[in-house]
Amino acid sequence: MSTVSYRQLEKRFHRIHLLRSIEQVLRWDGEVMLPTGSAPIRAEQLALLETESNSILRSRKTGHLLDRAESHASALNDWQSANLREMRRLWQQANAIPHRIVNAFHRATTRADMQWRLALAEGNFAPLAPHLERVIEVVRDKALALGTAVGCSPYDALLNEHDPGRREAELERVFAKVALGVPPLIAPLIDFQSRQPVMAIAEPTPVARQKDLGKRVMKALGFPFNKGRLDESLHPFTEGTAADIRVTSRFDRYNFMTGLMGVLHETGHAMYDYGLPGDWATQPVGRDRGMAMHESQALFLEMMIGRDRPFMKFCAPLIGSAFRVEGKKWSAENLYRLATRVQRSLIRMDADEVTYPVHLLVRWELERALFDGTLAVRHLPEAWNENMRRYLGLVPSNDRDGCLQDSHWPLGYFGYFSTYMMGLVIAAQLYRVMRLDLPDFESAVAAGRFGPLFEWLEHKIYGQGARLGSEELLRQATGEAANPEHYLDYLKNKYPGAH
Amino acid sequence: MSTVSYRQLEKRFHRIHLLRSIEQVLRWDGEVMLPTGSAPIRAEQLALLETESNSILRSRKTGHLLDRAESHASALNDWQSANLREMRRLWQQANAIPHRIVNAFHRATTRADMQWRLALAEGNFAPLAPHLERVIEVVRDKALALGTAVGCSPYDALLNEHDPGRREAELERVFAKVALGVPPLIAPLIDFQSRQPVMAIAEPTPVARQKDLGKRVMKALGFPFNKGRLDESLHPFTEGTAADIRVTSRFDRYNFMTGLMGVLHETGHAMYDYGLPGDWATQPVGRDRGMAMHESQALFLEMMIGRDRPFMKFCAPLIGSAFRVEGKKWSAENLYRLATRVQRSLIRMDADEVTYPVHLLVRWELERALFDGTLAVRHLPEAWNENMRRYLGLVPSNDRDGCLQDSHWPLGYFGYFSTYMMGLVIAAQLYRVMRLDLPDFESAVAAGRFGPLFEWLEHKIYGQGARLGSEELLRQATGEAANPEHYLDYLKNKYPGAH
Repeated sequence: MSTVSYRQLEKRFHRIHLLRSIEQVLRWDGEVMLPTGSAPIRAEQLALLETESNSILRSRKTGHLLDRAESHASALNDWQSANLREMRRLWQQANAIPHRIVNAFHRATTRADMQWRLALAEGNFAPLAPHLERVIEVVRDKALALGTAVGCSPYDALLNEHDPGRREAELERVFAKVALGVPPLIAPLIDFQSRQPVMAIAEPTPVARQKDLGKRVMKALGFPFNKGRLDESLHPFTEGTAADIRVTSRFDRYNFMTGLMGVLHETGHAMYDYGLPGDWATQPVGRDRGMAMHESQALFLEMMIGRDRPFMKFCAPLIGSAFRVEGKKWSAENLYRLATRVQRSLIRMDADEVTYPVHLLVRWELERALFDGTLAVRHLPEAWNENMRRYLGLVPSNDRDGCLQDSHWPLGYFGYFSTYMMGLVIAAQLYRVMRLDLPDFESAVAAGRFGPLFEWLEHKIYGQGARLGSEELLRQATGEAANPEHYLDYLKNKYPGAH
Repeated sequence: MSTVSYRQLEKRFHRIHLLRSIEQVLRWDGEVMLPTGSAPIRAEQLALLETESNSILRSRKTGHLLDRAESHASALNDWQSANLREMRRLWQQANAIPHRIVNAFHRATTRADMQWRLALAEGNFAPLAPHLERVIEVVRDKALALGTAVGCSPYDALLNEHDPGRREAELERVFAKVALGVPPLIAPLIDFQSRQPVMAIAEPTPVARQKDLGKRVMKALGFPFNKGRLDESLHPFTEGTAADIRVTSRFDRYNFMTGLMGVLHETGHAMYDYGLPGDWATQPVGRDRGMAMHESQALFLEMMIGRDRPFMKFCAPLIGSAFRVEGKKWSAENLYRLATRVQRSLIRMDADEVTYPVHLLVRWELERALFDGTLAVRHLPEAWNENMRRYLGLVPSNDRDGCLQDSHWPLGYFGYFSTYMMGLVIAAQLYRVMRLDLPDFESAVAAGRFGPLFEWLEHKIYGQGARLGSEELLRQATGEAANPEHYLDYLKNKYPGAH
């Protein structure tokens, strides 16, 4: 009888899970299918579902059940205890923020998002500034409330929302190492590559053939198409639960590599979701371990696996048959060189794997300066351009290619860009250990046998759900906490021109 | 202050409306997009939404608010009063059926639906029989409970669910007239048409071109693609609210007419939904006036408008350019002859407009015999075949082309087929009056000007929502109650070989 309250909590969270799964279908539909004029009702539908699941989560009744279940915690097994801990964490987070702030946040970000779209179209940051200022004010209120409830600094509280347990101090160390290690690699590497022959692919590839290739690759990777789809959208994304996962990529007629890498990246996300512990599918402990870990899975598949020779050996014949092409340009070696070509560019989303972290460095510094007020919002464009010049030697000619390119800040996503950085660090760390554990994984990948690789990830990461904290999970998988040295080593080993 | 309770009811029904609109997106997705293995979670999601909106509707609180609002009814205007009446009707219907029966109905129909799919695949009714028996038992319980609450016979209670206010006695008269009037037309008509030249179209038309044609036709009809879509599915259907309507058709490479007529039929449904009174979009009084009226709109557009010479004059050039074809075969006159070709066939869904009501006659007799127990379920196949022989002179060689072709009965839809018949009767009646009101509507249609036609429907039907009862609505629109004579006249006038 002592687990009665716990069982009731499981039922409540099952309901929350279903409501969230409906939200996910509506979000996917909103990006891929929704007629433009139907946006208002979609917003109403999503608001209703969010309110509904939030009111179950926040409710006094849920609080009482948590109290009672915790007082009988000894009756629970390992997974149940972890589940209860996650329930409490979610309840605490939801209750930490007063309704007043939740509503203000919603209003401010909705308005700023709309202004951001207009500002982006005009390539001018100025009209967005007052709206972004308002967002930052509300984010500060939110962070303070969260931090007070959880007992940490406001900025740590924001980090926690996306990557439970991560602290600013740790990120400081990681970013400092990356700031020292990566930028100096770029110039010699570009110089080296300029002397290395590569054949550009300029002819267009019909989108239908690119989608066909995407599906073949996903199939080989083990993506279960009986419980998922691949579609096209403006930006690639993955939405859903293991029971129904919708992956999208964007396909550029003149650059098939973008679409293929988008497919790999998103399949990395999807495979994590599919691999989550099925027995706990409807419960908090059955969820992923935060956005840094999630991003690591996407980057692992796109960067470590996809942009490598064994994968291109496997993929070249598939590309040949899906695109109906042949010749040296389409050889594994040339495709590999194309996929690892490094160049300085203004847009994060188009960056290669060496310059990508530099784009994150730019944002890391600016975000905290915006948050603590040492950088006034109206000066963001100059500060952005100065950071780009300093780290990449490039200055955008307008805000569209500068500080307007990402929607994170207008949408109130502070403490999010760092999950991309941690994703790279974790991916490289996992990659190192996997190579030790699976010595012949390269020949398996070249032969299109991805089974061992995903079994390894399933065992180390996917199947663990949210049972462990993120640091403990990484430590158990790799023997140490997050260590950016492995990422730097990985880059130096992979890119022969980098010293 | 006297409208406080009424206002609170409006809020509750707004919420129900949103929940239903989410259900509709999920149902559309379920037919058009859902991976096969994801059916179980979709069923769970739909069940959650239904339970949620039903529990708001059935709740004691809603009952109290209705009582209080009714005691202050004098403070309400015309539309508000009608809205309150509809709210009460829905509340009464929802509360009439005990949970026990709701659950039994759900279990029985889910099981029978599954068995029906298997039986259909095998073409053998026998294994479905016990499951259909169980469905009929539960339908009887449900009808008795509903009838007792509303104060009518059990079968009338079933009719009421789909077509509020309709009575079995009235349908008896309608079906009796159709049974006398239509079957004798068929033989002479087929004989006449056999001497009338028509050029068959045997070459395949790519589905993409058929969809393109469908979109062009819908655009001309005024379908707002900024708030709706056209897609492909196994069976044509329309799903959504005026804020976002999803139309589908099925497209047969070797018979483009099926797809085009499906598009017209479904666009008829969609235009009704778009035309419902916008000020009442979230309220019961803003809904359509039942399935007979809805079906009449679909049949009106498909049969009266679409299968006619003026429409084919408008459509022939569109077909020519969408399909990239030309020649006499594709002339308006030949297309008209193809669209009005009559032949005896086994399948209701493929029937032309003259034999279609005969298929409904077959079902009308059998359904009531099944419901009142005078026909044992296990004898359905023989009774079906006998009815087909008597009315159409055809006997199916297996149950797939016989009593298994429709899923209505296994799904518990009793009292539904008659809405198709009433749809035909209402459509013909509206058509007659519209021709009097809009004397030059034929030249407008031939010129692709559909504005006046839809304005007329908007004024007579769409814009009335559920303000009036169905009989009153029809009476106001056409000056009389449902009268099948107009339908018989319509057929005789349209088909020159019919006497």
